[in-house]
Amino acid sequence: MTLPQSVRDDAAAVEAHLQTLFTEMSGPADRLAAAMRYATMNGGKRLRACLVMAAGRLAGGGEAAAGLVEVAAAVECLHAYSLIHDDLPAMDDSDTRRGNPACHIAFDEATAILAGDALQTLAFGLLAAPRAHADGGVRAALVAALAGAAGIDGMAGGQMLDLEAETRPMVLDEVRQMQAMKTGALIQFAAVAGGIHGQADKAMQAALERYSRDLGLAFQIADDLLDYDSDSATLGKPAGQDADRGKASFVVLMGLEPARKAASDLITGAEAALDPWAVGAVADQTAALVSIARFAIERRS
Amino acid sequence: MTLPQSVRDDAAAVEAHLQTLFTEMSGPADRLAAAMRYATMNGGKRLRACLVMAAGRLAGGGEAAAGLVEVAAAVECLHAYSLIHDDLPAMDDSDTRRGNPACHIAFDEATAILAGDALQTLAFGLLAAPRAHADGGVRAALVAALAGAAGIDGMAGGQMLDLEAETRPMVLDEVRQMQAMKTGALIQFAAVAGGIHGQADKAMQAALERYSRDLGLAFQIADDLLDYDSDSATLGKPAGQDADRGKASFVVLMGLEPARKAASDLITGAEAALDPWAVGAVADQTAALVSIARFAIERRS
Repeated sequence: MTLPQSVRDDAAAVEAHLQTLFTEMSGPADRLAAAMRYATMNGGKRLRACLVMAAGRLAGGGEAAAGLVEVAAAVECLHAYSLIHDDLPAMDDSDTRRGNPACHIAFDEATAILAGDALQTLAFGLLAAPRAHADGGVRAALVAALAGAAGIDGMAGGQMLDLEAETRPMVLDEVRQMQAMKTGALIQFAAVAGGIHGQADKAMQAALERYSRDLGLAFQIADDLLDYDSDSATLGKPAGQDADRGKASFVVLMGLEPARKAASDLITGAEAALDPWAVGAVADQTAALVSIARFAIERRS
Repeated sequence: MTLPQSVRDDAAAVEAHLQTLFTEMSGPADRLAAAMRYATMNGGKRLRACLVMAAGRLAGGGEAAAGLVEVAAAVECLHAYSLIHDDLPAMDDSDTRRGNPACHIAFDEATAILAGDALQTLAFGLLAAPRAHADGGVRAALVAALAGAAGIDGMAGGQMLDLEAETRPMVLDEVRQMQAMKTGALIQFAAVAGGIHGQADKAMQAALERYSRDLGLAFQIADDLLDYDSDSATLGKPAGQDADRGKASFVVLMGLEPARKAASDLITGAEAALDPWAVGAVADQTAALVSIARFAIERRS
């Protein structure tokens, strides 16, 4: 499947904005800037950025508020940081990422650690800068939400649990929790951040939370299915890694067909959460979020 | 020399607040929480935290505003993150820190990388949370300032330049720039953040910037002097590391006595910047900042 034009336009706009950010980076640490750019401008699908844009427009009554692209860029920088550090020899020890040498291979390990560090910093800096939103309270709320999603109770904590799973196999509930933290939290932040930026009312914010929680879990189940199904060339990274390591994935613990059904059911639930906005002024934005959700489980890489 | 009682009280208050933060951390990633706590609660002098508190009270007309301790804790978390990552095998490869095993020795490399990552996140989360300051605009300004100090144009960029210096020796101006980024930026942030939190006027904010810029540079020159002078037992880390690696330090490039004089002159300049507030309602706060500055170059570890 392909994503609708508005979503592809959003991806292109965020891509261009990131390109500008890195082009404008000056200062003496140019090797660090090159590593940050390399790891961020790597052909990613920008799904998280597209979630920010579509959810932000939904909350804004159909219009993209000024500064929303800064939030989308911040999510991509945070995501890029996590991939750099996940790939490090001490972590998942992955030499390739999306078919290219991982950051620590293209540069070196120290530079990769610092590039991840500085990309995390950049993400928070983008959210806090006045051009992200005119209201300082909104900017601080975005930072607080990202900190919750990225820290010990979110992405970093989830990666810790994932590493521990290599020595102590997890049961399904533990895998679900680990993935909700490791992958789900940032996906959820992306949609919720759009709502925060557009100052959505409580009903819409709750719907975005429900939508993105289900989407995040479905996304990870789909990832496990891809890891099981794909060959390495399609995936852009070594396939079958999880099973080879004896890691407990959704596919291993649920079985192939139940995992497929669970992902599909979750996406149905995610769509249902947005039903109240499926018609009317913001119907196009809801449709965009629905298409992103479907894409998440139907993608081939 | 010893620091005045008010500064030691500030250090103790921040220490207690950090202890509470880590004690209250719950959730499944308890190994990560333990590593974060280990690396932060390591007997550090909390000079950066004391800068935040004294500068914040100076800006607040002598009173410590509610939430200032959150900002002080954030600076210490950011500092702890930087030490964890600096010590990693791929970076400075240091097995000890303040006389104890470095985080990646006490735990393991992956846990140490994640503990640093999550401490950086925590720092931004503390600044953005409502309890740091009632005004969201102030919280966002604190986040933006920390992002500037910690990222590619500050601490992370400085560490990159420091690593590059192992293969390409630097001249004095380059060392000065590198250290201003690597160490100076966070020290400067600490004082400036106090001013932001207390909503200092332009004159005071400029004075805090001048004070902390000079202090940051003096602090690093003092560090180089300690590295040259000390034995390892006093320093809590292997002494003479810089010279052994052929790294260009202030001592090597300036000579011992000129380096001592430069540090002393910088502290004189830092004190002079605060002259307008040396008498009157905030004289005690100014005296605290002066004592911290003197301590920075007279400390023995």
